[in-house]
Amino acid sequence: MESFEINKEDLERIKTALGGDDAELEKVLAEYHASEIAILFEQLPLEAREKIINILPTEEASEVISEMNEEQDPGELLISLHPEKRSEIIEELDYDDATDIISQLEEHEQKEILEDLDEEDASNIRALLGYAEDTAGGLMNSQVIKVNIYLDKKDALDEIIRQSEEMEEFNTIYAVDEFDVLKGILSIKSIIKAHANTWIENLVIKDFVYVKADLDQEEVAKLISQYNLTAIPVVDDHMKLLGRITVDDIIDVMEEESTEDILKISGVSEDEELSGNWKAAVKSRLPWLIINLGTAYLAASIIRHFDTTIERIAIISAYMTIIAGMGGNAATQALAVTVRRISLSDLTDRQAYNTVLKEFLVGLINGAANGLIVFFIAMIYDANLKLGLVLFLAMTGNLIIAGLTGATIPLVLKRVGIDPAVASSIIITTFTDCAGFLLPLWLATQFLLPHH
Amino acid sequence: MESFEINKEDLERIKTALGGDDAELEKVLAEYHASEIAILFEQLPLEAREKIINILPTEEASEVISEMNEEQDPGELLISLHPEKRSEIIEELDYDDATDIISQLEEHEQKEILEDLDEEDASNIRALLGYAEDTAGGLMNSQVIKVNIYLDKKDALDEIIRQSEEMEEFNTIYAVDEFDVLKGILSIKSIIKAHANTWIENLVIKDFVYVKADLDQEEVAKLISQYNLTAIPVVDDHMKLLGRITVDDIIDVMEEESTEDILKISGVSEDEELSGNWKAAVKSRLPWLIINLGTAYLAASIIRHFDTTIERIAIISAYMTIIAGMGGNAATQALAVTVRRISLSDLTDRQAYNTVLKEFLVGLINGAANGLIVFFIAMIYDANLKLGLVLFLAMTGNLIIAGLTGATIPLVLKRVGIDPAVASSIIITTFTDCAGFLLPLWLATQFLLPHH
Repeated sequence: MESFEINKEDLERIKTALGGDDAELEKVLAEYHASEIAILFEQLPLEAREKIINILPTEEASEVISEMNEEQDPGELLISLHPEKRSEIIEELDYDDATDIISQLEEHEQKEILEDLDEEDASNIRALLGYAEDTAGGLMNSQVIKVNIYLDKKDALDEIIRQSEEMEEFNTIYAVDEFDVLKGILSIKSIIKAHANTWIENLVIKDFVYVKADLDQEEVAKLISQYNLTAIPVVDDHMKLLGRITVDDIIDVMEEESTEDILKISGVSEDEELSGNWKAAVKSRLPWLIINLGTAYLAASIIRHFDTTIERIAIISAYMTIIAGMGGNAATQALAVTVRRISLSDLTDRQAYNTVLKEFLVGLINGAANGLIVFFIAMIYDANLKLGLVLFLAMTGNLIIAGLTGATIPLVLKRVGIDPAVASSIIITTFTDCAGFLLPLWLATQFLLPHH
Repeated sequence: MESFEINKEDLERIKTALGGDDAELEKVLAEYHASEIAILFEQLPLEAREKIINILPTEEASEVISEMNEEQDPGELLISLHPEKRSEIIEELDYDDATDIISQLEEHEQKEILEDLDEEDASNIRALLGYAEDTAGGLMNSQVIKVNIYLDKKDALDEIIRQSEEMEEFNTIYAVDEFDVLKGILSIKSIIKAHANTWIENLVIKDFVYVKADLDQEEVAKLISQYNLTAIPVVDDHMKLLGRITVDDIIDVMEEESTEDILKISGVSEDEELSGNWKAAVKSRLPWLIINLGTAYLAASIIRHFDTTIERIAIISAYMTIIAGMGGNAATQALAVTVRRISLSDLTDRQAYNTVLKEFLVGLINGAANGLIVFFIAMIYDANLKLGLVLFLAMTGNLIIAGLTGATIPLVLKRVGIDPAVASSIIITTFTDCAGFLLPLWLATQFLLPHH
């Protein structure tokens, strides 16, 4: 199979069916998976979405809504539905999904929705709304299968089957005491395979990985990936079981974090939505561009300082842009490798030292290689040995600076607690621009100006 | 809990224990999870790794080896072990993990290892070695729980428990016919809850998501994420069940693909390992830098063309670097958002058109905003209204070009089948550099040169 992508044929089919009678629409919709309908929603107006949700069976409708991504605004759709239909759909949703959607709405809309729900659902969702979105608490589902650790196999299995009524997956079961304190985890397999009279206490694993509700979601993702877990329990400060996070929730987190990394390293605010409108994009990018403008003036002030050199050797201003540009490129390379490396795991002092040393060497070699090319071009094109030497030295020097700053700046920022992806690229460009102008201009002034 | 990071205390403890007697070492190691030992291995030489693997219980040792990442070279460690110990460890590994490690070795080493294994394991691993590493076949584990679709509940459950002996997780069960053709999937929950006499045929879901063995791993990740699966079956062209891929394997794929995206967009070959040595880094980055040097000369040739203008208005060469640099920054922003967006999902023609239009608007507004700043600085600092206007126009023009190319180039590359992350950044920098030099120089020549 191939993943489902938006396409004209499917869109046309749905649109035609939307114009026809309900029975026809129902038949067409039955051929699509909920996540496919959610994708098609991207190209359908609110009224069409509403009509489709109203015609789908409640279970399917709630699945479509949980599959819509944040940018499609599933909350707006929920609010537009008849209160009864809406409550039915929310009751079908997992608590974590319902909370994600409701948290995007205005306070009075949240209140309205919660008032219509039955008390248990409402209080569960209210509790989840209290956690920050990017923490373990904000990710977790409070629906878990838990059994008292002092039961025997038979009673536990009955209890598990009873509780699993509303759960899709029940691979991991949590064993708690009478105060809901998490005591251990066990797999459905170990229960099924156990002899009839076995006590749950003897089946549980007591050395398990868990997280507190306020842990950052990036740390949760690291733990799940590091210990190869399919789910992780979330507890409060007294080890009381609050919920669990499953690996498929983490996939979304990882996608989100990678997007943020790519945006930040490119000078875009991490909050900019990929399909956001132009106003949001201007708001996210203009501040960064203005900071860049400041550093560009800093670099340009170096050029102003060498006015006389440029007036006499105009050609040097063409070459200096090449050397500054190449420095920027080489620094971006060193930066990307270093930032990505420290975002995947921390480095020891020795590893950090080796990274800087490596980037110095890479800068030296790549600088000398490109310096030689520039040297020969200057020899052939300008027939000027001295100019060639100046350019060779400037290129090598700037690529060494590029490698050193590209590796050092993110490592230093990380140690002082600043996100290296955000600030690194602006700092290193300033370095390579300044050095890229200063080196050729200063060297040219020293060695090429006749009356110096 | 926090994720485990390399730290001095744990390293010192292990190193001290390595110098002591075996009982002491065993005791210290027992306090670490296999994935933690794998992380500590990064800082331990081969002999130390060997000693630890030999002292650990086989099951734990095989887990440590499966947790080592590719860059730590688990194959080298396997080869260094006594053949008997080695075979024991490999037999404990999942087939897919064993295959990943063995595939990294030389052919004669692979042969040596496979000859020592029992026939079933060897032939399973041999089969997996035949699939390309980055396809569904290369990711899958051929160990699955499968039952004949024509069994009843009791026989099926017995069979499942028998097969689950060697599996950690058995949430998904595959129903096949007598030729191993995949007929449906079912959950352990549906079997447990079914009445005693139910036929498996009546429990299976027949409309399921599957992949062919040669599907690219990125597509597999998209499917698992799109349909929220915990596992996906892999079949051959005749729907014969070959294995399955679980969501935790996909987490590694996603991390890998994000790393590749970040590296490619920064002009680093996707094959460069983050912790690779300087030789590999030079090999990966130098070709890209040389291509960049070529485009830099292209842009610089524009500057050469305006020699006279620069000699007379030396200050313009400082301003042109600012305008070209700002264009590069704005284009990188537009590029990052567009590349990430199309790497997460395809765009319809209308969405593509809207993206370009949005980036044009963003370029216009951000260009005008920065153009105003540059205008006022030229008025204050150089007291030159004409210069201010030239710079305003050049800045606005170049940021519009930056937005248009930053959005259009990746969209066009994607349509013609070229990976937009690889080639985009070099193409747009060429555009913004050329326009960044051409616009201010040409405008200055037109409006600022006295004797034009």
